[in-house]
Parts: sequence; structure tokens; C-alpha cells
Amino acid sequence: MPDTSASPFLRACRREPVPHTPVWFMRQAGRSLPEYRALRAGIPMLAACRTPDLVVEITLQPVRRHGVDAAILFSDIVVPLKAIGVDLDIKPGVGPVIAQPIRSREGLEVLRPLEPPDGAAVAEAVRSTVAELGATPLIGFAGAPFTLASYLVEGGPSRGHERTKALMYGDPDLWHDLLGRLAVIAGAFLRIQVEAGACAVQLFDSWAGALSEVDYRRYVLPHSATVLASVADLGVPRIHFGVGTGELLAAMAEAGADVVGVDFRVPLDEAARRVGPGCALQGNLDPAVTFAPWPAVEEQTRQVLDRGAGLAGHIFNLGHGVLPETDPDVLARIVDLVHEVSAR
Amino acid sequence: MPDTSASPFLRACRREPVPHTPVWFMRQAGRSLPEYRALRAGIPMLAACRTPDLVVEITLQPVRRHGVDAAILFSDIVVPLKAIGVDLDIKPGVGPVIAQPIRSREGLEVLRPLEPPDGAAVAEAVRSTVAELGATPLIGFAGAPFTLASYLVEGGPSRGHERTKALMYGDPDLWHDLLGRLAVIAGAFLRIQVEAGACAVQLFDSWAGALSEVDYRRYVLPHSATVLASVADLGVPRIHFGVGTGELLAAMAEAGADVVGVDFRVPLDEAARRVGPGCALQGNLDPAVTFAPWPAVEEQTRQVLDRGAGLAGHIFNLGHGVLPETDPDVLARIVDLVHEVSAR
Repeated sequence: MPDTSASPFLRACRREPVPHTPVWFMRQAGRSLPEYRALRAGIPMLAACRTPDLVVEITLQPVRRHGVDAAILFSDIVVPLKAIGVDLDIKPGVGPVIAQPIRSREGLEVLRPLEPPDGAAVAEAVRSTVAELGATPLIGFAGAPFTLASYLVEGGPSRGHERTKALMYGDPDLWHDLLGRLAVIAGAFLRIQVEAGACAVQLFDSWAGALSEVDYRRYVLPHSATVLASVADLGVPRIHFGVGTGELLAAMAEAGADVVGVDFRVPLDEAARRVGPGCALQGNLDPAVTFAPWPAVEEQTRQVLDRGAGLAGHIFNLGHGVLPETDPDVLARIVDLVHEVSAR
Repeated sequence: MPDTSASPFLRACRREPVPHTPVWFMRQAGRSLPEYRALRAGIPMLAACRTPDLVVEITLQPVRRHGVDAAILFSDIVVPLKAIGVDLDIKPGVGPVIAQPIRSREGLEVLRPLEPPDGAAVAEAVRSTVAELGATPLIGFAGAPFTLASYLVEGGPSRGHERTKALMYGDPDLWHDLLGRLAVIAGAFLRIQVEAGACAVQLFDSWAGALSEVDYRRYVLPHSATVLASVADLGVPRIHFGVGTGELLAAMAEAGADVVGVDFRVPLDEAARRVGPGCALQGNLDPAVTFAPWPAVEEQTRQVLDRGAGLAGHIFNLGHGVLPETDPDVLARIVDLVHEVSAR
């Protein structure tokens, strides 16, 4: 297995000095790339995620094209749920759709632990990807219990998360059982990826920003902590990210993060103050900025670098995933700019 | 015109002692009420907004049913745009859709000032509603320049606001001209409502939470301040609300608010600290809570009241609009609970 431990990305995660600020983009592998759209034509999302050759190729595409400092495995947060037999699909233009939403104790039964054979395709994809990547580190990932629960309880994407929160407030015992099961599944999914060669993990809690800090700490944090703890002995950096989580940054760090991902609403220096010492930060250019003319993109990119310059560890990223209609050439130019401006 | 100046709602807006905490709900007039759905059957949204008799009846429905302490005019933030001739429609299940999105200087031409005749139907609806309401105060409202701009530039609802932000970062002169025009329109729309009898106004900046504080202050605040200043001489309380605006509360107060609306992500006592002295606060029960069993609703309602108990002025509300599938009986029960718990 190639040694990536001295890569700028892993050094920044460990808050060690770096030759330049490392950069990658959430959703860098995906719809913004024409070569991705060509490869995926006619292949449903979940089928693609289950096909190691496709996963390897899609994961590598943005590394080749943009020269990013890390790859992230092409997958989806519902892949481990599908792997244990939850009846779900990812519908184009909609997102994950669950055939039988979980709103009762009986519904929990489907959420059995994820065993290594369930993750065989993912492990194979990780091994092949790592071999191809060489010196570029691969990030594995999982969806956090709250975000997975929202899809399972609502039956699909939701803006208000009303059924999820109704369950959370109305039946805390069932809620904690649900999130406890999801934490075990997500933790096992991360473990499989790391044991196959991923050298960092990111826990995506996309919807955590829908909660107040009090509720996050009571209903969610213990379960996200379980997920992050389940790979603690493997020695890989753990990144923890959510959108609209300005109120939650300290709590998300406390859950066991080595790196906290910051969305674009809070400047990095202010985020560092909230997170406290001991964590690196990842972020946080607004993905919408990439739609502006280049001088504005450059100015905003430099501002993010300025705000992150005083941090012990800064991994440049967007403050949310790459938007589907993003011009990939702009992303490549941002990578070059970050490398150039931050070269030490 | 009935005298509502001693009503608990207006007293709380002025931070004066109240016999009980006043309560109303954003989107209280609308889809959660079966009598509303019956009345609207077959009538497009914008047609309903232009029909004074319907506006009066729909505005009154939640007052009768829930016993709320204030009514809010049934309308939509795009009504003043439609009134000056912008080609737009409100599509069921989608939201406002703009025929010709504005992305150039030529596109600004359609945004002429709103003249009193353009607001004649709204003024008539306000006058009739006020007469029917008696001692219950009526809140007028408008959409804030940033939120209106997002619809106009994107052409409809957007999650990433990428074209809006591309214009904002990429052509600040055009951006400020666009928001300046929208501020004049929104200010005139509020003025028409107040002059017809509305005794408070709310400026909705639904999407402001998509901005960092730095960008909000640079690109948006001056224009929202223009809107709020345009009714300053009329002596009515001005409420300023947005979703996900924890980072922006102080700035939104500085724009000229007498009352700052707080979403459910920040507790009221913390919001008061951020806003500083001089403003009342409105909020902030999570609308999703209303889907939980009653004991959980009661507990969360009491927590909001507890957090607001130390404030000079607190108007109880949700932290966002009533969700369409909300059980209206729960809303009525919340009103009773707020009145009972807060009775002094």
C-alpha cells in the first residue's frame, strides 16, 4: 500500500507544517464533470456505487483533472443501508427514497449490523482506488446517524424534518435505539474503508444544522461520537462536517473530530475560536462563488486562505458540495491558486 | 379605525409590560387550515392575493380558529413585483417562477417604482380586514431585497443561490442597483399597507441565512435598512426575520428593526445577547415540534417561554412558517398554553 502519511493533506489533518495548503472539494467526483456524466450514462447511482471499476474511475477523475490533494471515495451515504437490505433507491433529481419509512419499533428490525461481507464491493473499490492513487490519500466516508435517520423516517429528502423531529421529541427511547443502530452501521462502514486503505474518513451530517445546539447534544452527539470512536484505534484523521452548523461547531468537535468541516457562513478564524484548540479546520469557500467571474473567485479564495492562515491545520475546501452546474475548469484554477498562494 | 395600540402584541413590540405573552404564527393563514383549502380550491395563489374579499376572509381564519394576538395579511412576497408588471407566477408545489430572470442591466428596467394605484387591491384588503379585526392588530409584510433578488435572478426557488451570488460578487454595481430598486418597491408596499391600517410590518428575508455576516453587511443590509427606514415616520413596529440567521441577528437589528425574528436554531436568551438592547424578539418554537405528541409540544413551548421570560419584549411565534401538514388544533392549543403560562 502506498505511503501517504507525509502528504500535505494528512499533515494538515495532523496540524503539522505543510509545503502548501492542501485542497479537495466535497462532491468533486460527480455531476460537474463531463467525463463522469459520460461514464454514468444509463447506470443508476446505486448500481454505479456497487461496481468497483466504476467507483475507482469516478474517484480518480477529479484527481487527474484538478490535481486535488485528496480523493474521496465515490459513494453515497445510503450505500451501507442498501448493503444491509433496506429497500431504498436514489431517484435522479430527488435523492434517496425509502420504500418503508421507519417510524415504529418494528421498523428498526431492518437495521441489522453491517458485516464485512456486506461491504465487500466497497472494500474492493477502496483497495483498487488506493493502488491507482499512489501518493494521493483517499478519504472514506459515511453519513452520520441523524442525517441517515432523517431519510429513513421521512422516507426521502425533507426540508422541515418534521416526522424525524416528532419521533425525536415524542419517543426518545425509540429515537436513541434508531440512532444507536445507525451509529453501529456507519462505524462499521468507515472501518471497512479504512482497513481497505482509506487513510482518513469524513462523517457527513448534512442535516445536523436543522437542530439547536441543545437538541444536537441531547439527541445526536452521543451517536456521532460512537461512529467516530469506532475508528479511533485505526489512527486515521476523522473529519466531521455539516451544513449550517455555526451553532454546533464546538459540539461537532467534541464528538471526536480531528478536523471540523466549516460551511461558508462562519469565517475560519471565528470557527477556530468556536471549535477551540486541538482540531484542524476544513473549508470554506461558498460553492456559489465558483459561478462568479474569475476575479471574484480569486478574491474570495484568497479571503478564505487569509482567514485560515493563522490556523495550525487548514484544509481548503468548499463550504458545501460542488454544485452540479459548476464549471470544472474553475475548480482546477482554484486548486492552482490555493497551491500558489499558500506555498511556503 | 379600531385602536389596537394597547394590544398585547403592540405592547410587546414596544417592550412594554403585557398581561400575557402575545402569540401569532408565520403562515398561520394558509395551507394548514381546511377552511383555507376549501376557499382556495381552484383559485390560483396570485388571483387570491388580488381579490380583497378572499384576502380578508383568509387573513381572519386563523384569528377566529386559534385566537392569536395578531393577524398577518394574506399575501406573498412577489405580489408587489407582479403589481408593477413583472411576468411571474406562483406554481403549486414549486413557488414563484419568473418568466425572464434578471441577470443584466437591461433586465432592471422592469423594476419600476410601485405607485399607490399598483397597491389599490392590497390597500382595499387591508382596510376591510382591519375593520373586521376590531381589537386584533394586523401585520403588513414585504419580502426583503435579497430574497426578492434571489427569485428574480435565479428565476425561481433555489437552494444554492448560485446565479444570485455570482451577480453579487461579480457585478457589485448592478447588484446594488437591483437591490436598490427592490428596496424602493418593498418600502412602498409596506407604506401602502400601513397607511391603509396595518399597525406593524414584518420584513421577510427568507434567504438571508445563505450569506455570511460580512457579505450580508456589504451587499444586503443597506438595502434592507432602506426598506425599514421608509416606514420609520409612520410609527409602527418593524419586525425583521430570516431563517438560519444566527450569524446575522445583530446586523438584522441594525438594519432598523424594532423586533428581530429568531429561528429555532438559537435560543431566545442567546439571541437577545447577540441582538443587544433596544429590540424585542419574536420566536422561536421549531415548527416541526408541532408534529410530536402533545406532551413534547408542551415541553418545547414552555422552554421557549422560559428562554424568553427575561426579555423586555417577547412575541411568541414559530421559528419558521407553519408547515403545510400541521394539525391546526395543535396550533390552537399552543396559543392557549402560551396565554395561560405567561399570564401575569
